[in-house]
Amino acid sequence: MYNKKAYELGSVRSVIRELFEYGKKRAAEYGADKVFDFSLGNPSVPPPQEVERAIADFVATSEPVALHGYTSAPGDAAVRKAVADYINERFGTAFTADYIYMTCGAAAALTITLGALVTPEADEIIAVAPYFPEYKVFAEGQGASFKVLPITRKDFQIDPEKLYEAVTPRTAAIILNSPNNPSGVVYDDECLKGVARVLGSRSKEFGHPIYIISDEPYRELVYGGIKVGYIPNYYKDCVVCYSYSKSLSLPGERIGYVAVNPEAADAKEIYLAVMGAGRALGYVCAPSLMQYVVGRCLRLSPDLEAYERNRELIYGGLTRIGYECVRPDGAFYLFVKVPGGNDEEFSERAKEYGILVVPGAGFGAPGYVRLSYCVAYDTIKNSLEPFAALYAEFKK
Amino acid sequence: MYNKKAYELGSVRSVIRELFEYGKKRAAEYGADKVFDFSLGNPSVPPPQEVERAIADFVATSEPVALHGYTSAPGDAAVRKAVADYINERFGTAFTADYIYMTCGAAAALTITLGALVTPEADEIIAVAPYFPEYKVFAEGQGASFKVLPITRKDFQIDPEKLYEAVTPRTAAIILNSPNNPSGVVYDDECLKGVARVLGSRSKEFGHPIYIISDEPYRELVYGGIKVGYIPNYYKDCVVCYSYSKSLSLPGERIGYVAVNPEAADAKEIYLAVMGAGRALGYVCAPSLMQYVVGRCLRLSPDLEAYERNRELIYGGLTRIGYECVRPDGAFYLFVKVPGGNDEEFSERAKEYGILVVPGAGFGAPGYVRLSYCVAYDTIKNSLEPFAALYAEFKK
Repeated sequence: MYNKKAYELGSVRSVIRELFEYGKKRAAEYGADKVFDFSLGNPSVPPPQEVERAIADFVATSEPVALHGYTSAPGDAAVRKAVADYINERFGTAFTADYIYMTCGAAAALTITLGALVTPEADEIIAVAPYFPEYKVFAEGQGASFKVLPITRKDFQIDPEKLYEAVTPRTAAIILNSPNNPSGVVYDDECLKGVARVLGSRSKEFGHPIYIISDEPYRELVYGGIKVGYIPNYYKDCVVCYSYSKSLSLPGERIGYVAVNPEAADAKEIYLAVMGAGRALGYVCAPSLMQYVVGRCLRLSPDLEAYERNRELIYGGLTRIGYECVRPDGAFYLFVKVPGGNDEEFSERAKEYGILVVPGAGFGAPGYVRLSYCVAYDTIKNSLEPFAALYAEFKK
Repeated sequence: MYNKKAYELGSVRSVIRELFEYGKKRAAEYGADKVFDFSLGNPSVPPPQEVERAIADFVATSEPVALHGYTSAPGDAAVRKAVADYINERFGTAFTADYIYMTCGAAAALTITLGALVTPEADEIIAVAPYFPEYKVFAEGQGASFKVLPITRKDFQIDPEKLYEAVTPRTAAIILNSPNNPSGVVYDDECLKGVARVLGSRSKEFGHPIYIISDEPYRELVYGGIKVGYIPNYYKDCVVCYSYSKSLSLPGERIGYVAVNPEAADAKEIYLAVMGAGRALGYVCAPSLMQYVVGRCLRLSPDLEAYERNRELIYGGLTRIGYECVRPDGAFYLFVKVPGGNDEEFSERAKEYGILVVPGAGFGAPGYVRLSYCVAYDTIKNSLEPFAALYAEFKK
């Protein structure tokens, strides 16, 4: 006697996990320099040194009962104020601490936000392909039906007309993820304006707001001066889910936040529903020490230079070989079109060359593979020859 | 458009929260020494110094990408092994790392375990009064119906016959909490044997195991050499939910674990269901730094002496005045019978004396009030006179 759905979710071997295990085995057999593991999205640059200093400093100087004690459920008031102030400073918005809810990372931010927005009347969540596979798990876990807007444009920008058709009276929200995992694409100004226009008109038509849930763990990871539009400045009915996992290289510490746009319809009620959903899911408060650490460090950026060098090398290298791929403006992923179009077969065959890449099917985009380039520079350099051989084989 | 249930959960003003706010206001008006706040269950002793040293040490010596990186979903393998080994050493059990799942505290352990055990066929969760109020929220959040076994014995031990009657074919699990919040009572050997006997016979009769979920955040907080029975040694179909919040005074850090009894029916499947439920709820992994810290510090105990002195003073003081109360063997709570029996009125009137206590109704036990004695010794000392005046008033 156990919950069958939970059992299935727990026992499905993750493709990425299997690749990782295979990589370890292969490294033991052939040597680590013969394995080119592009499967994992784990930051490869360390946190800024100020983060380590902040941890040491809080531990050395704070009263321990307070430092490690419960904060209020939405988070320490001063930390929430710091978050709100920083958002306002950067984006000209009008957040206050009362609209910020600190979470155990972006995944918690998403399940909590979904728990707050999915209703019996509007129980449909739309994700835009290619999308992060856990969106489906999170949405269905909160009782929603999960719908995918397929890829329609080669550059992965959203076609407003297609979105218009996809939205129904039962749509509670659409999840946007920019910079995108798995494509690295940043939605441009025209795209966001189109999305806002369509959702605005559909909300009016259906008599209730259709929310945007903006999942932004990669916001700070952008290259070449590209601007990532801030959704509250395009569309009022939105909730931002943020994480410090990538921006401060703290993925294991589980620290992020939900920011409910104060301009949203029912903003106060949504914030209370966020509190209630967090409570029901067992999130008592976000980890206290890390709340204080991000409160102090939220202006810091990761070492983008390493990621940018990697991007140049892998994007340049692969496209010179002949691979087709949208040049990513952010995150640390490359979403490559598979010559011949069979992503499962390509990923399987790539293993013979020591190359580990994730098939696109799980991201709602068969025919592609995802490469995470948060790896050592030399791993990329040494992978280009095997990538060329693989290409030659599949191009036949 | 927002989820109404979540909104209600988020907007109910917690009684404890309101008392806390009142206390702050009163302290500002009359002085902090005129407020006797027994409402909050926040540990008042600091973590053992080794905990602070462990944090500083990990930060100073570990490779930061690994220290703050994702662990595997169930937790770092070495930490899980350390937890399993320590359980086995203390209780003569046979846990392995494969049955330990690290969590963001006990609340997460409970929601995840409920998500794994509640099924469409067996969707009933039983709690034993007096019980921690969030059990209801957690159970209902996982789709269960919540049933309370009322108080039948003055000493708060469980009457096996009453439990026998309460269990139905739809019962998935019963939650036990010993040492108990709010009563401080530790279930004795006879009680646990009775519970095991009844559940064993009912499981057989109904053709499926009825699980015990053992919620053990207060396990290490016991006084006078009392032994807290380890449920897996009484009953095989059980899951233990543990937290380091109280034992290491780290409630804000959200670190604990689920331990699935390897002897349970379907133990492997339940563990996978735990993994799946955690995934669906958005728990990617427990906070990484704190996993390593508790892995190193799990043999440490809190400063029990302070709590024990408080217990003596408050239990002795109140019973000498005339209050009726079971002498608590553990935790840091006292569950006092209200003279006259109206707990709401008593709690309200107590505020006039600067005394903050929580009415028992929320714990499934009207007619009682809960006192948390994790406060300064002098707070208790100075509260005894007002407590006597209050008693005189209600005894009339």
